[in-house]
Amino acid sequence: MVLVDIGNTNIHIWIDGKTVNKKSPEKYDGRVYYISVNKEKEKIFKKLNPDAVNLEKYVLFDTAYKGLGIDRIMACKSISDGVVVDAGSAVTIDIMQENRHLGGIIMPGIYAFKQAFGTISEVLQFNPDIINTFYPNNTSEALNMGSVGAIKCMIEKYSQNRKVYITGGDGEFLSRVIENSEYIEDLVFLGMLKTIKELEKK
Amino acid sequence: MVLVDIGNTNIHIWIDGKTVNKKSPEKYDGRVYYISVNKEKEKIFKKLNPDAVNLEKYVLFDTAYKGLGIDRIMACKSISDGVVVDAGSAVTIDIMQENRHLGGIIMPGIYAFKQAFGTISEVLQFNPDIINTFYPNNTSEALNMGSVGAIKCMIEKYSQNRKVYITGGDGEFLSRVIENSEYIEDLVFLGMLKTIKELEKK
Repeated sequence: MVLVDIGNTNIHIWIDGKTVNKKSPEKYDGRVYYISVNKEKEKIFKKLNPDAVNLEKYVLFDTAYKGLGIDRIMACKSISDGVVVDAGSAVTIDIMQENRHLGGIIMPGIYAFKQAFGTISEVLQFNPDIINTFYPNNTSEALNMGSVGAIKCMIEKYSQNRKVYITGGDGEFLSRVIENSEYIEDLVFLGMLKTIKELEKK
Repeated sequence: MVLVDIGNTNIHIWIDGKTVNKKSPEKYDGRVYYISVNKEKEKIFKKLNPDAVNLEKYVLFDTAYKGLGIDRIMACKSISDGVVVDAGSAVTIDIMQENRHLGGIIMPGIYAFKQAFGTISEVLQFNPDIINTFYPNNTSEALNMGSVGAIKCMIEKYSQNRKVYITGGDGEFLSRVIENSEYIEDLVFLGMLKTIKELEKK
């Protein structure tokens, strides 16, 4: 079985439990299930894999949020209670309570923060790092606190006593910054597998 | 007396208590004092106003922060105790305690957040608004919380019981979002005036 998660920047592929990231769509053998938030890449992918099943049509998910991205739905679907963070091009923060999605936040991803600072002034440069000071005392620390620290601030605002589950390209890094958090590489795929199981039960 | 604050985007001018914003440097009559964070614009300004005094050389300010922008120094100099926010191209958050600067944070400005979201995906659009829900339930609310809400989160993290003084182009808007805050249009100029007074005492 092949699961494909077509994102804005990368395409994430799960083949029998192993994951790999690609820039462009490819042709896959066997049963192929997919989700997509990028219409251009999806078109190319569908031409190469005409029998692939779009799980967006079948997923059951309890939320009042209008227009929730299918990748966020899948990541959240695998968690009953907690804060679900997908740290990619954007950082999404979604709150789950008893299998219900209460709402969510979208922040720029760490790379987008870096780009944003660079657009304001060429002197605003930093390397994302863990946070080891409360009062930044140079430009690099100030920018790290204003980006990584701001993401941390928002996650902690919503986590309170909830556990935080983090996925995505910057997920492993972020999980080192956020207390009571766990990095789960396959969070989106776990939701896709759960959706396939529900489909098969019908 | 004319005070000039040359920023990255705008040039702010104070003429005998009245303020005005310009895009390009101009020639001024009388005593001219200035500060600048933009070397290109400063060069043009100095050609037009060769006798203008750069207050950066004379300002006294107690901080351990290396490379603190002169506009931030001037805004902070006018406040003894509190959080000083300058909401322009970037949002800077500086903490003052008994006339001492404890440290500061740099976040993208609201426009930079909008641009950053647009770079990630064209569907990530919103209009900055006050925050009236804890759990965002659509893209617009999610982006507003992830930008305006993130700025609010960081300011509140540092304000605790301190009063918040806000200046800059988005300052009036932000002051409506932040509790225990006051918008002061002339904050940077108040610091410049204080510096000139100290100079004259010598």
